[in-house]
Amino acid sequence: MTQWPDLAGRIQDGLHVLPVRVYYEDTDFTGIVYHGAFVRFFERGRSDMLRLAGIHHADLRDAGESGLAFAVRGMDLEFLKPATIDDVLTVHTRLVDHRGARIELAQEIRRGEEPIARAQVRVAVITMRGRPTRLPKALEARLQRLSV
Amino acid sequence: MTQWPDLAGRIQDGLHVLPVRVYYEDTDFTGIVYHGAFVRFFERGRSDMLRLAGIHHADLRDAGESGLAFAVRGMDLEFLKPATIDDVLTVHTRLVDHRGARIELAQEIRRGEEPIARAQVRVAVITMRGRPTRLPKALEARLQRLSV
Amino acid sequence: MTQWPDLAGRIQDGLHVLPVRVYYEDTDFTGIVYHGAFVRFFERGRSDMLRLAGIHHADLRDAGESGLAFAVRGMDLEFLKPATIDDVLTVHTRLVDHRGARIELAQEIRRGEEPIARAQVRVAVITMRGRPTRLPKALEARLQRLSV
Amino acid sequence: MTQWPDLAGRIQDGLHVLPVRVYYEDTDFTGIVYHGAFVRFFERGRSDMLRLAGIHHADLRDAGESGLAFAVRGMDLEFLKPATIDDVLTVHTRLVDHRGARIELAQEIRRGEEPIARAQVRVAVITMRGRPTRLPKALEARLQRLSV
Repeated sequence: MTQWPDLAGRIQDGLHVLPVRVYYEDTDFTGIVYHGAFVRFFERGRSDMLRLAGIHHADLRDAGESGLAFAVRGMDLEFLKPATIDDVLTVHTRLVDHRGARIELAQEIRRGEEPIARAQVRVAVITMRGRPTRLPKALEARLQRLSV
Repeated sequence: MTQWPDLAGRIQDGLHVLPVRVYYEDTDFTGIVYHGAFVRFFERGRSDMLRLAGIHHADLRDAGESGLAFAVRGMDLEFLKPATIDDVLTVHTRLVDHRGARIELAQEIRRGEEPIARAQVRVAVITMRGRPTRLPKALEARLQRLSV
Repeated sequence: MTQWPDLAGRIQDGLHVLPVRVYYEDTDFTGIVYHGAFVRFFERGRSDMLRLAGIHHADLRDAGESGLAFAVRGMDLEFLKPATIDDVLTVHTRLVDHRGARIELAQEIRRGEEPIARAQVRVAVITMRGRPTRLPKALEARLQRLSV
Repeated sequence: MTQWPDLAGRIQDGLHVLPVRVYYEDTDFTGIVYHGAFVRFFERGRSDMLRLAGIHHADLRDAGESGLAFAVRGMDLEFLKPATIDDVLTVHTRLVDHRGARIELAQEIRRGEEPIARAQVRVAVITMRGRPTRLPKALEARLQRLSV
């Protein structure tokens, strides 16, 4: 049964899908969505995929000696089609690779079936002092379940 | 029956309620939600209340001779409690007054029952050339239904 | 002599003036500056006035037992005229009142001589645990010099 | 002689350098600059390089039959080091290639001499109806002067 609000999207066969609405704040004076807004939408998709996998910011903050965090190390972005005010888009996120401190994800934003933007994202697990590290085993196992 | 995605919130007895999630983009280095993020959340609430009332940006753009738009003329903001990453908040929006070109709304952001921030918002209907004007009658009637 | 870059604005007779440029990120699909962008511009003005007065975030973080921070408690905003892409605006900030944990500021954004937006801002000094507190005497004295 | 404000940065030997300050709005709850903020900083650098080259948004809007615009088609981003509140960064922008409707730029954000983030950016010149097109000759010549 669906609960309301149903905000974190859904995972099916390892693919996470998050709907996002385009608001005023996401557009610019050329009348369409600002390219930087897609970067925020991609981050929402990654955060909610981890949330549904059971990996919460609070768990990370309390892990290890100093706490852990995810840091984006690189993104290759393609902007394929414009999106506009009132559009409902979906952010599709898939875990591509995961070894040691490194995680790779493939993401796509769509309007219906139409691809709007794509991202290849490289994320590192780091300690709060900035050093690359591994996830604790319990969190690692949750992440592993996303690699189909 | 609930459709997925269910993004525009709900109206009950003239009160519109929109759930929003706090993401990285909404926080700042002090660890909590940046006060400017609440201003964006309030705008999402107003946009989605109008959307559910049947007043779309496209209708406005095509109305009158030059197109119409809503312009925020003033906001009185109170920030009552901090909100943090991963919080699910709700934006509550109520039409308080509406005469001629002027609309007044009362808004509140809550976490569960706890009030987090409040806004009194004054909006004007303007032509694309910036002059105050009235809404066309059909849209006016839809807005009127929100004043309970 | 002017050093380059000259980013933090200037204080004269207690009035701080900060120039800001309007970029893509500040505009929305209606072609003008998004009202939430002015909230960010006002914050830049307050931060840089404090910076020039010698009150740095690092000083605050290291003050008291748990560190201190400024928290915005309320803002009354008026949006008077639209601003557009490429505009150079100035943010004018004046300390209006300061007693104990409370600071009040009056701010105005102008394009040349023309007022674009105004804000009355209420800020509290808080400990990192969220309790209102006083500034340490050394920082208090620096703030006092801004009240002309 | 330097005029105040001196906001658009400087061009020397084809390299544009723009100083930017890190404010509250650019940071997130992990205590450092949000990766999406660098995307905004890169855009400010590109806008101001074009501004100093004499290519203004107003010129573009009035060019051709329907007006022209720049659209970001792709970005490859690397995030090398964290930046924090109060940092003064510089955005370095260089035109790498320019043929027909396509422009390629290499950008780097530094703190002093230290590289913080890098971007390879692909931009297209498009009509307001979204079709790739060439710049008018006068603007083309101004852009050409940036390729050293």
